[in-house]
Amino acid sequence: MDAIPQARPEESGGRSLPVVFTSVEFRDRFWRPRQESVRARTVPILLERSESAGMIEALDVDTPPPPLRIPIGRWGGTTQMFWDSDLGKWIEAASYTLAVKRDPALEARIDDIAERYRKAQRPDGYMNAYFIRRAPEKRWTNLRDWHELYCAGHLIEGAVAYFQATGKRVLLDALIRYVDHIAATFGTGPGQKRGYCGHEEIELALVKLYRVTGERKHLELARYFIDERGRQPHYFDFEARARGDDPANFAFRTYEYNQSYKPVREQDRVVGHAVRAMYLLSGMADIAGAYGDEGLRLACERMWNDLTGKNLYLTGGLGPSKANEGFTFDYDLPNDTAYAETCASVGLIFWAHRMLHIDCDGRYADVMERALYNGAASGLSLAGDRFFYENPLESHGDHHRWEWHVCPCCPPNIARLVASLGRYLCSSSDTEAAIHLYASSVTRLALGGRKVTLRQETEYPWEGTVAVHVEADAPGRFVLKLRVPGWCRAWSATVNGAALDRPTVERGYLRIEREWKSGDVVRLQLAMPVERVYANPRVAEDAGRVALMRGPIVYCLEAADNSVPLHRIALPRTAKLEARYDAGLLGGVGTVVGEAMAASEEGWDASLYRTDRPPPVPVRVAAVPYCVWDNRTPGAMAVWLREA
Amino acid sequence: MDAIPQARPEESGGRSLPVVFTSVEFRDRFWRPRQESVRARTVPILLERSESAGMIEALDVDTPPPPLRIPIGRWGGTTQMFWDSDLGKWIEAASYTLAVKRDPALEARIDDIAERYRKAQRPDGYMNAYFIRRAPEKRWTNLRDWHELYCAGHLIEGAVAYFQATGKRVLLDALIRYVDHIAATFGTGPGQKRGYCGHEEIELALVKLYRVTGERKHLELARYFIDERGRQPHYFDFEARARGDDPANFAFRTYEYNQSYKPVREQDRVVGHAVRAMYLLSGMADIAGAYGDEGLRLACERMWNDLTGKNLYLTGGLGPSKANEGFTFDYDLPNDTAYAETCASVGLIFWAHRMLHIDCDGRYADVMERALYNGAASGLSLAGDRFFYENPLESHGDHHRWEWHVCPCCPPNIARLVASLGRYLCSSSDTEAAIHLYASSVTRLALGGRKVTLRQETEYPWEGTVAVHVEADAPGRFVLKLRVPGWCRAWSATVNGAALDRPTVERGYLRIEREWKSGDVVRLQLAMPVERVYANPRVAEDAGRVALMRGPIVYCLEAADNSVPLHRIALPRTAKLEARYDAGLLGGVGTVVGEAMAASEEGWDASLYRTDRPPPVPVRVAAVPYCVWDNRTPGAMAVWLREA
Repeated sequence: MDAIPQARPEESGGRSLPVVFTSVEFRDRFWRPRQESVRARTVPILLERSESAGMIEALDVDTPPPPLRIPIGRWGGTTQMFWDSDLGKWIEAASYTLAVKRDPALEARIDDIAERYRKAQRPDGYMNAYFIRRAPEKRWTNLRDWHELYCAGHLIEGAVAYFQATGKRVLLDALIRYVDHIAATFGTGPGQKRGYCGHEEIELALVKLYRVTGERKHLELARYFIDERGRQPHYFDFEARARGDDPANFAFRTYEYNQSYKPVREQDRVVGHAVRAMYLLSGMADIAGAYGDEGLRLACERMWNDLTGKNLYLTGGLGPSKANEGFTFDYDLPNDTAYAETCASVGLIFWAHRMLHIDCDGRYADVMERALYNGAASGLSLAGDRFFYENPLESHGDHHRWEWHVCPCCPPNIARLVASLGRYLCSSSDTEAAIHLYASSVTRLALGGRKVTLRQETEYPWEGTVAVHVEADAPGRFVLKLRVPGWCRAWSATVNGAALDRPTVERGYLRIEREWKSGDVVRLQLAMPVERVYANPRVAEDAGRVALMRGPIVYCLEAADNSVPLHRIALPRTAKLEARYDAGLLGGVGTVVGEAMAASEEGWDASLYRTDRPPPVPVRVAAVPYCVWDNRTPGAMAVWLREA
Repeated sequence: MDAIPQARPEESGGRSLPVVFTSVEFRDRFWRPRQESVRARTVPILLERSESAGMIEALDVDTPPPPLRIPIGRWGGTTQMFWDSDLGKWIEAASYTLAVKRDPALEARIDDIAERYRKAQRPDGYMNAYFIRRAPEKRWTNLRDWHELYCAGHLIEGAVAYFQATGKRVLLDALIRYVDHIAATFGTGPGQKRGYCGHEEIELALVKLYRVTGERKHLELARYFIDERGRQPHYFDFEARARGDDPANFAFRTYEYNQSYKPVREQDRVVGHAVRAMYLLSGMADIAGAYGDEGLRLACERMWNDLTGKNLYLTGGLGPSKANEGFTFDYDLPNDTAYAETCASVGLIFWAHRMLHIDCDGRYADVMERALYNGAASGLSLAGDRFFYENPLESHGDHHRWEWHVCPCCPPNIARLVASLGRYLCSSSDTEAAIHLYASSVTRLALGGRKVTLRQETEYPWEGTVAVHVEADAPGRFVLKLRVPGWCRAWSATVNGAALDRPTVERGYLRIEREWKSGDVVRLQLAMPVERVYANPRVAEDAGRVALMRGPIVYCLEAADNSVPLHRIALPRTAKLEARYDAGLLGGVGTVVGEAMAASEEGWDASLYRTDRPPPVPVRVAAVPYCVWDNRTPGAMAVWLREA
């Protein structure tokens, strides 16, 4: 499986590339149980729910097309028009588990789905199941709203992953034919439609396809979709009029919603639907890297700064508003009404990972890690069977993970991320290896001609000590880069017990260049105190509030651990806070305990208002990682606490 | 006009009764300008907008019935089914201005409307314009949702007020015929419907009708509607089934919405739609008083305690939720999303006023005053031409008064309250006079056989000194009761310059019994410092916050007066706060100024989160009365401030 390409050799230009995820074995207590529950629980459950919703049956061209909303089954009621994307994402997640461990029964189910798609595919290559079955005359008539290319993108990602895991080509070949049809339909040539999708996704999918086919045309098509986006005259205007519709009737009113309000190279703010924005930016980073396109990279950079400097929750959640599932105005980061879709945080991780491989700068890894351990990990229950769509930072007790959702996009999204997480751990080139994330694990690398294994021993994210054991088939000189996280304010490192001579940190990475041999050990000590975090005063909802972090983990108070209603608790500036690992809690988590103050109810009797300040009384508080909240008795939760 | 009865002589049983509002002349700087702008601006504007919405034209039976939603005019789009109530309430408000100052042109408009109603009235007495014109076969088929009796109630109130102001009987006589029809249709007798209205109002209107007709049957009908409410088998169930509808299809799901979930005597919480609840409770208090019905009074008392102890905003606003325009759960008092309909605060004043006249206890007057000066007064712009429907206690700058509303119930409601405000100032019986509210004014009373004038000289609500000058046609012994407001923690009083000998305060009223003669002066000194007010710790949204009051006035910060965004401001516990009267501001208002702290933006640069607490810097803040906010440049507003 080492042959799974993360990038074509011609793309690398000597840069580090992510390691293949199958080369990484997690041995830790955070990710390994999550990967196992994705394999054993989430993937089978998603298949069952998709089947019960009628998604697979609906592909069978020998049966009548399904009704628009399927009432059957426990999991009915999802949006049929997007089912290809749900299946594609599920196939992708399942394939990542197959890449690690083959499973004939699971493969038989995917083979059946692949065969149904092959049979459904039109002679010209067109292969959107919804339009084939229900509205063939409407294909390619509403790219703005109907997600045909988005669906194609997810099927491509699924087919690529399944091919990489099993070598089976039925679905991949069907998709390649479909992409040929798409490439013939869209473009700047005579008779072609100058369209692109209202929901980005196919751009990054085509780059993945290129990496298995090596066909430059696949990369070119991705670049076309990115370059065409937002040009005038506007395709969505043209297309609406062609349908006899007034473009002004667009439900979301502004093309900021789908990031097509102007050409992407001219954009400098994250706008509109957050998941779409993250998928677009991932595709832009792919193309910027593959073509060495500096204008595109700078556009990504501007939007990175806009997102991370003004529009990102502490948890790595993004897109505060339910109305557009996306961005509103700078510093608008409400806690209890935060939309912060799981898919958006997953998409941010995709984008950050790509930025990191254009330019190995710790600030990308910092954000990637923040989203991963907090706003993305929260999307999945510890048992792997329930899913957050929205990830608010405060709840009054009425927000819980779903078994399924009317838009079931998030469950397979977090599943595919977790199942392929090894990809995010390290990168390597001929001359260097870089460790971005810490977790007990074994990573096998090809470093130039050498085979090198990096074995991490650590209790990260619960402790800041990391030992990296190097094993190499032969001694040799290379650079080992170890990320010094942005949250870390004091660190030290030794090689084989000896302190480093003038250690250098280059943009967030400790760089150690030496002759490495088997048995070498680097020990990194990252000071990991409980930190009190404040938001920029422009963030209205966090004014006068403080959040607790330790290492990359954002903590929250849950009603289950605290004896007084959370709104009454205020944390004194001088409160002593202690970190404790609790092996028996929530699968084993770090906790933060300490003494806070809470307004007393004493003396209020029946009165609602009075002129005497309610006297605060001391109260013991305990915080748990945000990512594991709502895995016990349902109750209130809060990340940002009042500071007394 | 002194003959306008506030209650029938047989009802009084020696208790104090409210004075007739035409006996009160305001000479103050708060209410007098508001009364003048209601007369000169609001009443003509409401007529123009009602006419422009098609309400008056729609009454003309010689023209085709209007379309369901009238697109014509600037003020179209209101709910036609409720137009009778809009016109009834406007006629009532207009009549109160006519009672003070006749106006032939205005009367001609009302006479025309009265004549249209008379012509539209069916031979059997039925007189709902909507059902006569548009759906005659549906009359009395959906009392739960269609407001026929509610509309009748507002027309009764309008007709009674117009008769009292002018002696003209056309509309009153039509309503008396309509009430005869209603009394024949509804009741417990054979062949009668055991119905009552989903939107209470007719109950209190029938009591008003009884007070001008003296016909016991009008009072009896009001009592029937109150007694029947919420009995099983449930009328709304029966009625829904009779329409072929499933009672479970009720849009609001629970009969708590219209206070019919159980018989009213068994209720002990304020529930459902807040305006309906207040109108019901006003009617209940009327009937409890008129019949000396102790069970009904106790039910009122329980709901009073529930409202004022757990469910009332500091401003006297009530009903936090938009979803049901009403109550949710105890202590649920969100600030920025507060619904707190103007009509609900007006309705609370109606109810409190009635409770006060069953039992002269200052706690009723305290709440009445709180709602009057804050959550009700806020409904009307200073110019008298714009109206709040919702009255939130915090705004991010996007909440403003309407010129008109899809449900234009609030404008005439606040107008009729302000126009008849004299009614709320004092009460008298044969042996005593009680002053509930302070304002520079002249009140003429009949006290037993004597004519007594009470002339208040005061800058209230801006200053706490009140001089009450007594003038009597002959000296005589009676009791003068002066309310000592619940907000007041220190007071003193003199009569003709001499301190009182062992002054007694009985349930909120200073009681002075003596021989009074012309020239006597009582001077009351109410200490009126700026007060910091705290909410019960069970109120989540006010945790860690403080509000400012001075006297009965709730203050707020408005962006217009403050140099930093309001969310950044925190008020230190030790902040020195100073009250200042500003004659040039907002028609002349008290303000509160002082020094607070605000988080500084310094050193944040592009970062969104950091571990250093943003240093607070001193900032000058100025607060204005809540009731006058949004009369200047649109901007943010906050009542509850963070306390540092």
